[in-house]
Amino acid sequence: MRVSELVQRSGVPLATVKYYLREGVLMPGVTTSATQADYGDEHLHRLALIKALAGAGLPIQKIRLITALVEHPGDDLHDTIGRAIAALPPYSDAPRSADHPRARRALEHLGQVYDPSYPAVEQLERALEAVESVGIPMTDERLDAYGRHVRGIAEIDFALIPTESAQAAVEYSVLGTAIYEPVIAAMRRLAHQDISAKHREENSKKDTA
Amino acid sequence: MRVSELVQRSGVPLATVKYYLREGVLMPGVTTSATQADYGDEHLHRLALIKALAGAGLPIQKIRLITALVEHPGDDLHDTIGRAIAALPPYSDAPRSADHPRARRALEHLGQVYDPSYPAVEQLERALEAVESVGIPMTDERLDAYGRHVRGIAEIDFALIPTESAQAAVEYSVLGTAIYEPVIAAMRRLAHQDISAKHREENSKKDTA
Repeated sequence: MRVSELVQRSGVPLATVKYYLREGVLMPGVTTSATQADYGDEHLHRLALIKALAGAGLPIQKIRLITALVEHPGDDLHDTIGRAIAALPPYSDAPRSADHPRARRALEHLGQVYDPSYPAVEQLERALEAVESVGIPMTDERLDAYGRHVRGIAEIDFALIPTESAQAAVEYSVLGTAIYEPVIAAMRRLAHQDISAKHREENSKKDTA
Repeated sequence: MRVSELVQRSGVPLATVKYYLREGVLMPGVTTSATQADYGDEHLHRLALIKALAGAGLPIQKIRLITALVEHPGDDLHDTIGRAIAALPPYSDAPRSADHPRARRALEHLGQVYDPSYPAVEQLERALEAVESVGIPMTDERLDAYGRHVRGIAEIDFALIPTESAQAAVEYSVLGTAIYEPVIAAMRRLAHQDISAKHREENSKKDTA
């Protein structure tokens, strides 16, 4: 297809498509004349990936890091996916802590490895600091329940990784990590509402009984 | 305590404390002279709440809505907490949909009530649209697992609601909803890493066996 069709089908404006080509996150088309190039489904697919990552708040350098890993996933998929996910927000301006006492304690309690080179460790430490500062600290009781259920969610995520190619696995992992977070947050709010409504109903039954 | 001590102990600058007083989100101190007022622990506590809400991205009008509900929780705590949580981000500029086909289907599948007046329904619909658009749609298999585990998380959240006062229950619900979302997101990323690492380890054992 010509670039005009790529623009139309992807919904990405021409200036933005050109920007992505210049930045090297969208691969060039096949040149068919001095002023024209031909684009295929792989370009549409890549634009959808870039659009989703940009929508999740990633700056162009982080998008480039991820598209490079998608193109060259290498042999160690665990490592590649880990590096791709490390490019996702949140980003912190604060210097990385040498130690993460809250995150370390939580991970050890859950029987998970504490590896401070994972950026999510720093993210967990900041998040646990925040809950502590508002007076709702992570207790063992809560940690046990959260740990069990978050692991259940992560297990189905992992079970559904596509196996047809390393590219597909990296794309799935990055997108699935970022884009399912708001789904889980919304589902949790609705579960709160549902539990509270059912609880109220039961109480009013008791009152009238 | 004097306002200077309030500033020092809360870590909130004087100009910001004055702004919160003017906006009615921080209750006035007890006037002790024409130019002085006396503040207590309830002011420190309120400033910690405001700070946490502002840190979670709430504009002052939303903070005021929540502090008003904390001060006047009324008789129907379920309704009050629902309204307080509805004041949390994310905020959408888009007009609210009349229907939420994806969220409705998901909730019906999970046996939860579909009530479009809950803002989290719109939030879920948008989030489900996003996962669909990147080609990782919510399948029944994933929904069953997510539904079960998110409910498990919501149940412990609900079980830990403080019972000493309606105020405390409203504060806990609003803060706990907002501030535990990043904890869950970080824990999920670390669970992915852990599952992937253990999986790799098992595979390499098989290879050498």
